[in-house]
Amino acid sequence: MAKGFQSLPGFRDFRPEDCAVRNYLFANFREVARRYGFVEYETPILEPTELYEKKAGGELNSQLFCFTDKGGREVTLRPEVTASLGRLVGAVQRNYPKPLRWFEIGQCFRYEKPQKGRTREFYQFNVDLLGESTAGADAELIALSIDLMRELGFVPGDFVIRLSDRAYWTDFGSVKGLSDEQTADLLGIVDKLEREKPEVTEKKLQALGLSTEEVKGAIEKPSSLGENLDSVLANLEARGMSDFIEIDLSIVRGLAYYTGVVFEVFDAKKSLRAVAGGGRYDTLISALSDGGVDLPAAGFAIGDVVIRHLIEETPHAAKKMQSVLQEEAGCDIYLVLADDNQQANALALSSKLRSAGLATTFSLTPAKVGKQFKQAEQAGASIALVVGSEYPELSAKILATRAEETLSDDQDIVETLLKLLPNS
Amino acid sequence: MAKGFQSLPGFRDFRPEDCAVRNYLFANFREVARRYGFVEYETPILEPTELYEKKAGGELNSQLFCFTDKGGREVTLRPEVTASLGRLVGAVQRNYPKPLRWFEIGQCFRYEKPQKGRTREFYQFNVDLLGESTAGADAELIALSIDLMRELGFVPGDFVIRLSDRAYWTDFGSVKGLSDEQTADLLGIVDKLEREKPEVTEKKLQALGLSTEEVKGAIEKPSSLGENLDSVLANLEARGMSDFIEIDLSIVRGLAYYTGVVFEVFDAKKSLRAVAGGGRYDTLISALSDGGVDLPAAGFAIGDVVIRHLIEETPHAAKKMQSVLQEEAGCDIYLVLADDNQQANALALSSKLRSAGLATTFSLTPAKVGKQFKQAEQAGASIALVVGSEYPELSAKILATRAEETLSDDQDIVETLLKLLPNS
Repeated sequence: MAKGFQSLPGFRDFRPEDCAVRNYLFANFREVARRYGFVEYETPILEPTELYEKKAGGELNSQLFCFTDKGGREVTLRPEVTASLGRLVGAVQRNYPKPLRWFEIGQCFRYEKPQKGRTREFYQFNVDLLGESTAGADAELIALSIDLMRELGFVPGDFVIRLSDRAYWTDFGSVKGLSDEQTADLLGIVDKLEREKPEVTEKKLQALGLSTEEVKGAIEKPSSLGENLDSVLANLEARGMSDFIEIDLSIVRGLAYYTGVVFEVFDAKKSLRAVAGGGRYDTLISALSDGGVDLPAAGFAIGDVVIRHLIEETPHAAKKMQSVLQEEAGCDIYLVLADDNQQANALALSSKLRSAGLATTFSLTPAKVGKQFKQAEQAGASIALVVGSEYPELSAKILATRAEETLSDDQDIVETLLKLLPNS
Repeated sequence: MAKGFQSLPGFRDFRPEDCAVRNYLFANFREVARRYGFVEYETPILEPTELYEKKAGGELNSQLFCFTDKGGREVTLRPEVTASLGRLVGAVQRNYPKPLRWFEIGQCFRYEKPQKGRTREFYQFNVDLLGESTAGADAELIALSIDLMRELGFVPGDFVIRLSDRAYWTDFGSVKGLSDEQTADLLGIVDKLEREKPEVTEKKLQALGLSTEEVKGAIEKPSSLGENLDSVLANLEARGMSDFIEIDLSIVRGLAYYTGVVFEVFDAKKSLRAVAGGGRYDTLISALSDGGVDLPAAGFAIGDVVIRHLIEETPHAAKKMQSVLQEEAGCDIYLVLADDNQQANALALSSKLRSAGLATTFSLTPAKVGKQFKQAEQAGASIALVVGSEYPELSAKILATRAEETLSDDQDIVETLLKLLPNS
């Protein structure tokens, strides 16, 4: 253990091998978003605390990473991005044709006790579709989440979309004669159904004039899913995605601002927390812009911590990731200087290769040829290119096969090397 | 102006068009680093404040974005990355062959009065070479900075590397009989030479037994640059990079931790602040790890704000950026549904195209064909693909040329569309 400073509890260092995993996730997020016609935006990591007080928060508020800045402002390291998105969209939406298909990849923060899988910072991929209130938009987002999982190497049987609609419970409450407030209470009870002790649930439901049996019956044997959910299901079926969908009306999402279809992505065993989740929030933009802008909206978010864990636990997804990481690791060319008199020519050659896009490295200090070859191996080089006294004649050793070729530092050298490189 | 919340002063929203510029910069940072065999890492955005108190800071300390967290910890939104890098490297360096070629792209924070070009947050590209004390390492970093500028579209005459060596002033101080402390004072005076009033400079120098004439003479007519600078110059000349270099011994960098060769990248007119800067800091890693790890090191950093400004002011660099952004903007295919009965087939087709990597979008709500064509234009689509009552026969309209082709939704459809797409 090295002496010296420590990082803060719950904050991660990404060593190169961790950063490569992070970047693999980000590249997949961006690629799938691009295929769906979404464009990237980014909002500040630090926001006025009032932004999160306004947006009804449930559990979130107690975990806010908030403080007072030097100027006496109450500020918060963002716990999520939707509030900032609402602020931004409220201010600039008139410049863009609707619907907005926007995504963001950024760090979020929660002040909670650090524990396995619960860091104080995490990256989140946020995908939002604004200005569209139809079931088609809900289906589009769910399809995007499914394609993201497939792109990450998951197959049917690895994960499931638990699909629900808050409107189902609003209708249920209305049939049972509940007030709006009571229906909100009911949603809170349904949200905690899997985690709460049965006797506590029963007692809370009794206060609303309901029984556990009644509510569980409504979840397990719904008489009708409603037009919206039926439409989402038909849409996803047309895309060939039905296998991934499981209607689960116990999913209502914790946050108060959801208004319609909601969904969560789970590993098939449901052994982890939700991998991703989201839904429709038609009134939030209006609330965040003080009624200035009224845009229906839906979105979902996926964090980097749980999905990384699930990839590493799923052999075929892990294998896909490893093969991409391996392909990206290591440089193309390691220049071995076998004759110190050729140093200037070797430097000129390095510039030529790099300008042509070849990842090229070399020893920055004089070293024996054997040591340079060892360094070439450590750098994961594909080719060790030896610059010696016969320059401009060069010797290229393909490190994987030990095959050797003689070539010349002429105008075709880049082309010649490209042919020798694997994956080209 | 929309009602509602505002972001904090000095914190930027990146709308999609701004985020595209940011991502263009990041892509160039990553590409040039890759060509030089550097790997990416990332450290926390929030660190213990003591990390920055230890690292001698000059101007930095008064601008620290520091606060007390809920747990009573003194914490700081990082003003720069080198201190975190030192901490991380001190802890893990033994796992990696030397030298470490590491880079990082991340957000940094300074609590200062927001003004044009001085935001409270900015992104920084940090490139560091650790475990190598030779001039070859200094030259490698300078070459990387030059290649980055060229990759961004700058040509000779657009920018200049102002190259210097702190050792020159240590030697100068030693010849003049200055103590270590007096030499440090001298470096501070040289650093401010361009900005300070001449009479203040003269007075400060007098206190060291020196004159302005003497110091300016040492800058303008150095008797010898020293072995190190000569070696860096020869190295860069071999790479064909001499045109970009200007020896300028008045450059010493503000921060106390630099120990040798230092450099700054400036626009040729020197009308902006430095675009990038860095140098050798051989004792910092040892200081940050309480002497646990002693690694010579050098590095440089470039922020996103000044370089973006310089690109936009330099027509050929701006043009290069615009052409890349334009190529990336817009989707490939916009599906136009001309017959509502074909909706399921259109959805299935969208899945097929997206799975093949084509950026595909469509109206999520029923709309007239004319409106859908308008949306296709707004989405910057290359091809509007019409799904009508003749399905599986489709009509493809290339929007740039208005040319039309008839094709079929069969197994070759992706291939057929790829041939019709520009840039393919």
